[in-house]
Amino acid sequence: MRTTDRPTEDRDTARVRRSRLSPERERELHEAVLELLGEVGYDGLTMDAVAARTRSSKATLYRQWKGKPQLVATALRHTKPVLLEGIDTGSLRGDLREIVRCSEQAHERDSGLMRGLAHASHDNPDLHEALRELLIYPEIDALNVLLRRAVDRGEIAPDRPALNYVVHMVCGAFIARPLVEGRQPDQTYLLEYIDAVILPALGAA
Amino acid sequence: MRTTDRPTEDRDTARVRRSRLSPERERELHEAVLELLGEVGYDGLTMDAVAARTRSSKATLYRQWKGKPQLVATALRHTKPVLLEGIDTGSLRGDLREIVRCSEQAHERDSGLMRGLAHASHDNPDLHEALRELLIYPEIDALNVLLRRAVDRGEIAPDRPALNYVVHMVCGAFIARPLVEGRQPDQTYLLEYIDAVILPALGAA
Repeated sequence: MRTTDRPTEDRDTARVRRSRLSPERERELHEAVLELLGEVGYDGLTMDAVAARTRSSKATLYRQWKGKPQLVATALRHTKPVLLEGIDTGSLRGDLREIVRCSEQAHERDSGLMRGLAHASHDNPDLHEALRELLIYPEIDALNVLLRRAVDRGEIAPDRPALNYVVHMVCGAFIARPLVEGRQPDQTYLLEYIDAVILPALGAA
Repeated sequence: MRTTDRPTEDRDTARVRRSRLSPERERELHEAVLELLGEVGYDGLTMDAVAARTRSSKATLYRQWKGKPQLVATALRHTKPVLLEGIDTGSLRGDLREIVRCSEQAHERDSGLMRGLAHASHDNPDLHEALRELLIYPEIDALNVLLRRAVDRGEIAPDRPALNYVVHMVCGAFIARPLVEGRQPDQTYLLEYIDAVILPALGAA
């Protein structure tokens, strides 16, 4: 198991992330990181390789990101084509269906990468934490905003227990299909799952 | 990526699995396979190593199992301490709670192993197929028997859409908790999930 090669002395100060790079340059870096990640996997990825591929100094990379886990999680977050924040159709069912419509492409592109990262994160607590902080929590926050709107509209009872498990139901939809049926979750399947599982569990069917 | 080292000429005939080993000897073999699997992982596991560890000939192994994927899946199936078949408490909620009570130990013991295998199965279609056939489908069949009894008792409407997605909801419970909360699913959590998600989705709450 390889750990990040970042020097430890600036571990905390680097936490304050101030972008000195142009958005274009940042985007280039993010894309290079994902490219490398696809080629060599998380454990094989080094800050040296990222520096070489992007013609940056390692100092720049460490100034910009806390370390390898954060760099990878940030690259994933910023190249994600779908963010839940933008979705507000006026109904819970509409919002959930809109997420499915927007996310299919993203899922197909990323699934191999994410599978590899999920596996790597079991042996790399720093990566696990970075993925949770930078990638998973923001999506959960956005999902909760969407659910709170549904509660405010009276579509879901405020004390409905399934409100705590929407992410779990969604995970199940994505993971069980390849596992059980050997197929990728497609739009038809996901839209059906929303009506069969998520809305009834929330008492919003 | 390593493929099975089994000779191809007996690929189909070996499919007919006739046990010439005593149950004790079979059990020994299964335990040795899981031991080796924990040590070297699926890709590192060879039939030679299994033969050496168990003091068997490779011919015996191939006569008994179709190949490495089937040997591994069978070993997992036969050392599983919980089988759904035995569970029948008289109510759906009781059956589901009984599964949770029996399965916690099993999950903790196997989770690392199963995670490794889930990852390996993405690159090894034969393993994926063997796990599905020998490990996942029998459990799904047993789960469906349990659900059919609930339908027959009138606890679930026969055309309830969520009936097709119970496995998916269960997968979500197990996978989302470590991913999102960084914690293993424990009994309290799983029992709550049954009441919050599975029973309401089935209209059986």
